[in-house]
Amino acid sequence: MIGGVTREARRVRVTLALPFPNAPIEDELVRLIHEAVEPLAAEVDVEVETIVMDEERRRDFLEHARPQRRAPSSINVKHVLAVLSGKGGVGKSSVAGLLAGALQRRGLKAGVLDADITGPSIPKLFGVSQRPGGSPEGILPPETGTGIKLISINLMLQSEDEPVIWRGPMVGKAIEQFWQSVAWGELDYLIVDLPPGTSDAPLTVMQSLPVDGIILVTSPQDLAGMVVRKAANMARQLAVPLLGLVENMSYVECPECGARIEPFGPSRAEDTARHAGVGLLGRIPLDPRLAVMCDEGRIEEYQEMDFAAVVDEVLELTFEDTKRG
Amino acid sequence: MIGGVTREARRVRVTLALPFPNAPIEDELVRLIHEAVEPLAAEVDVEVETIVMDEERRRDFLEHARPQRRAPSSINVKHVLAVLSGKGGVGKSSVAGLLAGALQRRGLKAGVLDADITGPSIPKLFGVSQRPGGSPEGILPPETGTGIKLISINLMLQSEDEPVIWRGPMVGKAIEQFWQSVAWGELDYLIVDLPPGTSDAPLTVMQSLPVDGIILVTSPQDLAGMVVRKAANMARQLAVPLLGLVENMSYVECPECGARIEPFGPSRAEDTARHAGVGLLGRIPLDPRLAVMCDEGRIEEYQEMDFAAVVDEVLELTFEDTKRG
Repeated sequence: MIGGVTREARRVRVTLALPFPNAPIEDELVRLIHEAVEPLAAEVDVEVETIVMDEERRRDFLEHARPQRRAPSSINVKHVLAVLSGKGGVGKSSVAGLLAGALQRRGLKAGVLDADITGPSIPKLFGVSQRPGGSPEGILPPETGTGIKLISINLMLQSEDEPVIWRGPMVGKAIEQFWQSVAWGELDYLIVDLPPGTSDAPLTVMQSLPVDGIILVTSPQDLAGMVVRKAANMARQLAVPLLGLVENMSYVECPECGARIEPFGPSRAEDTARHAGVGLLGRIPLDPRLAVMCDEGRIEEYQEMDFAAVVDEVLELTFEDTKRG
Repeated sequence: MIGGVTREARRVRVTLALPFPNAPIEDELVRLIHEAVEPLAAEVDVEVETIVMDEERRRDFLEHARPQRRAPSSINVKHVLAVLSGKGGVGKSSVAGLLAGALQRRGLKAGVLDADITGPSIPKLFGVSQRPGGSPEGILPPETGTGIKLISINLMLQSEDEPVIWRGPMVGKAIEQFWQSVAWGELDYLIVDLPPGTSDAPLTVMQSLPVDGIILVTSPQDLAGMVVRKAANMARQLAVPLLGLVENMSYVECPECGARIEPFGPSRAEDTARHAGVGLLGRIPLDPRLAVMCDEGRIEEYQEMDFAAVVDEVLELTFEDTKRG
């Protein structure tokens, strides 16, 4: 990250190249440089200048800065994508479910790891309630109608109404098990559905799973945007690449007169994406038909033009990623 | 909880009265009774029958079963109400904010403790960004335009985009501090805004704060209903009284033609309330005007008929609670 060191007489200028503007660790890094050169204070005056890396350098930096999170050799999963928001109820699980459904329809093998331990939605969206089986290779994830492999704590409870009253460390352990002890087999994409917040679950996923990229989900509220920016900054601090942003619930069409209503206020997708420093993957409407299909466990059957474009984008971005790797 | 013991020759029948049908501890209690009478196995056959308590007995039971969570003597807060859902994005913070606003308007003194550490919304809803001050009595909570006292982690961050990447134990500690170390002064109602899930934050609030009652919030999706039932069961397991359920985002009115659209599918408020074993406090519509006022930090100014009825109900329920105490 040291972009250069120049010296003119007593004056030494250190250039620190940061991957992002306002990187949260900026102050700390500057302090560390000053601390390191403190013994030279009698001889020189050190000045630290910060610049932002260009695209190429940043990519290279992140590639190396990222901790190596390797899958157990038995796991043959090509891509791990996590759906994150920070904010609750913006449709993370719907986006995770729609994405898995679309990938599967396109002939790829998809799985969904429900990392929302205390508010798991995935089994219900897919209408799956079968208990996972056992095998010498590990826990066998049940499959949906189209063959998507699912794992969720809700498949292991006696009743879906049973609360999982666990403090954070237990939540983290369960997620690690869902990754390591499940016989995922060969998958092209494993989609990880994260709970709201920036606490144990996303922290464990970002630290312990080989996440290739994060899809951020937001709703049109400014409030949601703020929490999404927090989540984006979390991903940066943990050096996990952000694929882009999906704005959900952008508008609803009146079935009577066709008017476009914006129940959460006007879209801020462009703004939120820019402030979060990511690209906009797409906007998807609030569709009562989707709500009903989710409640009926038929999310796989839902097809929508706007979302197809999001899937194209994700495929392109992760394919590029494969080429780079 | 022992409702009676009868004996006919060798046959002893123990009646176990449970506060709720399908109480999660039922199997465990039955097992404990069998274990306790094991030494008598040579003389008698013990049969355990479970029944559900009637309303009066249940109230009495919960009154006594509840752990005593006392406030420090310096805190003079008459009622602590927590807004819980389990599910994210159903409008817990809006309900907390609207409730505080309505109470304040009715001449009561209200405060809001934002227990959502990783996704705090309260300061933004009220347009407050002032840092809490210090005093010999503790942290001084900033006040909103109408004098509602607020505390939130977001008031303590350098930037609202900064993520709080804390594992559970830190989250619990912060919430305890918000209760114990804040100079709340005299309040009629302190509203606690909980994050989604049934992990550290709600667990800490229910275990460490003297919560008088919980207001459950849901949206019309069946999915939300399921997670809300988990939250209701959590409250029962921790013996914290449930005041009732608010269904948010029930419908949106088309501004063009006045049609009532149900973007999350048809209301299930009655069903969800019944399944969660609580009364329905009210339904509130999805109002684009509220979304805009929330984004503008003017939630205090929002007044809506449907919500006024919810407030009446809450006041009545907690007044009864006061009389009982």
